[in-house]
Amino acid sequence: MADIPSQFEIGVTTGPIRGSRKVHVGSLKVAMREIDLEPSSGEPPLRVYDTSGPYTDPQARIDIAAGLPQLRRPWQLARGDTEEYAAREVKPEDNGQLGPDRSGGVPAFPAVHKRVLRAKPGANLSQMHYARRGIITPEMEYVAERENLGREALRAERDGQARDGQDFGAAIPDFVTPEFVRDEVARGRAIIPCNVNHPEAEPMAIGRNFLVKINANIGNSAVASDVASEVDKMVWSIRWGADTVMDLSTGRNIHDTREWIIRNSSVPIGTVPIYQALEKVGGIAEDLTWEIFRDTLIEQAEQGVDYFTIHAGVRLPYIPMTAKRVTGIVSRGGSIMAKWCLAHHKESFLYERFDEISEIMKAYDVAYSLGDGLRPGSIADANDEAQFAELYTLGELTKRAWAQDVQVMIEGPGHVPMHKIKENMDKQLAACGEAPFYTLGPLVTDIAPGYDHITSGIGAAMIGWFGTAMLCYVTPKEHLGLPDRDDVKVGVVTYKLAAHAADLAKGHPAAKLRDDALSRARFDFRWRDQFNLSLDPDTAEQYHDQTLPAEGAKTAHFCSMCGPKFCSMKITQEVRDFAARQHNNPPLSGEGDHPKDGGGAPAPLATEEAEAGMAEMSERFREVGGEIYVGASGREHD
Amino acid sequence: MADIPSQFEIGVTTGPIRGSRKVHVGSLKVAMREIDLEPSSGEPPLRVYDTSGPYTDPQARIDIAAGLPQLRRPWQLARGDTEEYAAREVKPEDNGQLGPDRSGGVPAFPAVHKRVLRAKPGANLSQMHYARRGIITPEMEYVAERENLGREALRAERDGQARDGQDFGAAIPDFVTPEFVRDEVARGRAIIPCNVNHPEAEPMAIGRNFLVKINANIGNSAVASDVASEVDKMVWSIRWGADTVMDLSTGRNIHDTREWIIRNSSVPIGTVPIYQALEKVGGIAEDLTWEIFRDTLIEQAEQGVDYFTIHAGVRLPYIPMTAKRVTGIVSRGGSIMAKWCLAHHKESFLYERFDEISEIMKAYDVAYSLGDGLRPGSIADANDEAQFAELYTLGELTKRAWAQDVQVMIEGPGHVPMHKIKENMDKQLAACGEAPFYTLGPLVTDIAPGYDHITSGIGAAMIGWFGTAMLCYVTPKEHLGLPDRDDVKVGVVTYKLAAHAADLAKGHPAAKLRDDALSRARFDFRWRDQFNLSLDPDTAEQYHDQTLPAEGAKTAHFCSMCGPKFCSMKITQEVRDFAARQHNNPPLSGEGDHPKDGGGAPAPLATEEAEAGMAEMSERFREVGGEIYVGASGREHD
Repeated sequence: MADIPSQFEIGVTTGPIRGSRKVHVGSLKVAMREIDLEPSSGEPPLRVYDTSGPYTDPQARIDIAAGLPQLRRPWQLARGDTEEYAAREVKPEDNGQLGPDRSGGVPAFPAVHKRVLRAKPGANLSQMHYARRGIITPEMEYVAERENLGREALRAERDGQARDGQDFGAAIPDFVTPEFVRDEVARGRAIIPCNVNHPEAEPMAIGRNFLVKINANIGNSAVASDVASEVDKMVWSIRWGADTVMDLSTGRNIHDTREWIIRNSSVPIGTVPIYQALEKVGGIAEDLTWEIFRDTLIEQAEQGVDYFTIHAGVRLPYIPMTAKRVTGIVSRGGSIMAKWCLAHHKESFLYERFDEISEIMKAYDVAYSLGDGLRPGSIADANDEAQFAELYTLGELTKRAWAQDVQVMIEGPGHVPMHKIKENMDKQLAACGEAPFYTLGPLVTDIAPGYDHITSGIGAAMIGWFGTAMLCYVTPKEHLGLPDRDDVKVGVVTYKLAAHAADLAKGHPAAKLRDDALSRARFDFRWRDQFNLSLDPDTAEQYHDQTLPAEGAKTAHFCSMCGPKFCSMKITQEVRDFAARQHNNPPLSGEGDHPKDGGGAPAPLATEEAEAGMAEMSERFREVGGEIYVGASGREHD
Repeated sequence: MADIPSQFEIGVTTGPIRGSRKVHVGSLKVAMREIDLEPSSGEPPLRVYDTSGPYTDPQARIDIAAGLPQLRRPWQLARGDTEEYAAREVKPEDNGQLGPDRSGGVPAFPAVHKRVLRAKPGANLSQMHYARRGIITPEMEYVAERENLGREALRAERDGQARDGQDFGAAIPDFVTPEFVRDEVARGRAIIPCNVNHPEAEPMAIGRNFLVKINANIGNSAVASDVASEVDKMVWSIRWGADTVMDLSTGRNIHDTREWIIRNSSVPIGTVPIYQALEKVGGIAEDLTWEIFRDTLIEQAEQGVDYFTIHAGVRLPYIPMTAKRVTGIVSRGGSIMAKWCLAHHKESFLYERFDEISEIMKAYDVAYSLGDGLRPGSIADANDEAQFAELYTLGELTKRAWAQDVQVMIEGPGHVPMHKIKENMDKQLAACGEAPFYTLGPLVTDIAPGYDHITSGIGAAMIGWFGTAMLCYVTPKEHLGLPDRDDVKVGVVTYKLAAHAADLAKGHPAAKLRDDALSRARFDFRWRDQFNLSLDPDTAEQYHDQTLPAEGAKTAHFCSMCGPKFCSMKITQEVRDFAARQHNNPPLSGEGDHPKDGGGAPAPLATEEAEAGMAEMSERFREVGGEIYVGASGREHD
């Protein structure tokens, strides 16, 4: 890491995720992860979706000061619709240097792109634009390969069987083809956020007919955090499964912090440009102008931000609707715009200049994340008129963006009790023409600060099931402080499990493979496999070892919960052996005579015929399973 | 603590929960907790449900070796239907002392009840029996007072307003009267678990029309844990909100461990008697007999266990249905009975002797918790024929118990993907005549060991909303090891928030009071109030202090997330002030002209009339809110 003062040594976590290997699949070398199972399982490796980037590839040479390889650059250049030009010069105010610097300073990224790309005059770089012209881009091919995972093998196996799930009208295919991806992007049901100036990113799709994605927020503030820890958190969050990362930095050094993050990120990066624009006017919302905002968009588009949160739905007439709320306007971007609108008593420049913003978006292929500046910040304010007034405006803006072939997703709440969650999804689908929904939680109660990753994980799993395409994580520090590294991991894993639960409930064709593999491992006492198949192998093993640390306990056929005497799993094996023997012998009394789904009381046991042969079968069972069972696993509440 | 060897000093956590006071309400002195708010709030103290027992009462003298005061004894004796007799002598095998003792031994509880109560011949002590004879017991009165909380004040306020919730056919009253409690118990929709020999317990109700309850599991095993830590965990779990506690101990010293727990528990205690019965036969399931089991029931009923998990629905014909499952039978009790049935090729003695068991239950008022021995242990096995065959048998047994006026609840799964959860609730209501459902989670995915409090918390919140009366907690150690103290707290708080989210979604009349109070505190930067109103004030404050430890930061009008410059909450106050002034002035342009719920695009802003006066209003706003905002709270993702 030449050229960087030693205090800016940035350490990130590298190396494979426990028990798995990086693989690169197909001609595009799509990154995936394979988990090898113990030979005794007789099962092939399980392939899982991988967001972790080159950091988990032992072959990759990681140099934070140089940034990641530019995977997508050849594809971009091959399209012949870009022009290279000298990037805008960085100005002091880009780093918020209008006030006193208490941060100690952040060095500029050494390998900054001095020359950047944009669309040639009249061209449009957005994936939606290509898709609508019938072009399947390498980005779309990459997404198709990435989303399929184990679906190829399943195709034959399922063959006409009804899917086990309730998808609420989604259109999840059995197999994802590049053409399917193109079609979803063309009709606006999915986006592939991929700024032409972020060629380091691995293409991914956000859409209701793809795997549910999650976003992790990082970013320093004027009070806490620094650039090294933010880059570390970014790498850490993608290691555990963040599909995109938002840099929500405020305060000083905002430009340089972002450069370090983008150049080292293999996932799309989102920002809220109004934060930086506000820094440039010294934090005075009233002083914001379209020109300053526009300049900020270009600055960030040149750096490679893949999607912008734009709060263009916070319109002047909606602001008074928030006056009687318990928690008013909780979105920072929303409140900045509200303040601006009130101070000038004018309609928002974001709304009025929306088509001009779209011109910038398509020149770099930045996707909109239309911000819900009026989302509820408490249970009391959920689903109120301010929230839905804004949502319908976001629907109007979606159509305006689509008219320019600009990719769009829609941000959603917030704090919503369970019985009001589905209405959010239904209204979003109706208002926004199935543009991907991107929700924060929602938190299903306000009373558990310190546990809001969980209050929001509940809402996230539900709304993901109903059709939300990406879930914005919430950490245990929500409402209380800035997340540290541990909080980031807990937030990511919580949201990963919520997203997976949503995929399962939607009947995603391949989602259940991992659950089944893990459950088989659990049943077979393959502890290592159980750890390795889990979302967080390190924690799973650590928890196991807290009670039974010996290496032998990881191969033993019992666990600490029930001890070496009880073991329901072991008994089940005996039931299974018994049933297998019985298969070539008289049936157990009453078998097949049980109530069907929804039926009444079961038939009485033990007819006279069935009683016959009981002694024989009993004898047989004692031969098979008469030993004292010696293990235990999967203890549950009884 | 006389008479106990020093190594058995049992330390438990006492003292008020941060920021709150114990209060005793009404003639029955019903224990509750009041949270005082800062004077600046202008709000009265918030009264919350309190499970923590005398341990949080500074006036109470806690002596673990003596046990708790016998709150209910006078009520019991006043009924005149009990007889006192000499308790069954403790036998060595009651403590599982058939094998070598590696535990170091557990002393007998010093103040053990040598004489115990049971029903006089022909009498029936169950609350259901009283209820059906039209008797309102003090237990029912206590429950009514306890459940009401702030509902009295709300009664006038709501006055005919539609309730904000979806209760799926529950019948939650605006106000809980003792007569309502009696009626719910009489018809079997609620139970009040209260063994006559556990007079220390504070009465509580489990039923779909009451607040959703949670259970915490504790218990040692042959491998880990000891009696002191189990008593500590019990006290710790009720401090954070456990409504009942199950002692799932196995291995040695099981009788003595239970005695220590019951004598010191102010909440109902549940057990799975088959565990102890199995200990008595050296762990050999085939050697279990009705006589040994019956003797165990009486032993535990005399000690004061309030509800028994009885796996009487695991019938012989259902066992082969589990053979093709991914995880077979995961319930320990279920697998013990399955093994017994197969070994003898006989119907379960629990099923065959069910009416005899009910005779014991009513003599002491022990409630049934009919165990779901065939519940699914993996996503793959959810809602299968074995599970539902057993459920319908549990429905049959419910009616048999009710025929003897014995209280019943029904245990439920397990591992269930989200789209299959509601079917569990619907079938349970139909099969079991609205007897309270008591579910473990359910876990909505298998792939997150280490985070199964969350995977199950998602399912728990949902099924609680759908109608489950009590949620059995799951800790982060589920599937991996025995929970320690920290795990117990995380499990309890997670389930408390899930239960509360369910109450909110059902439209429980008083649930939202706490959310609103906390959200107002958040909006007002009343940090102390925010901490104190939360489910876990200690963690909330600790997380806050990790970023901003200074005492001043707890009164400052900003927080670490946004720093001292951004503050959406502050801006909202300005919006509010502005709207208030506007009230006596020309309306904001377009106000009132926004789309209604489900409406189309909003009306265009700024008609000519509205533009008029803009300069004036703008000027006014600058007067009101022109200062740079200085605070920040409630930062969310943008």
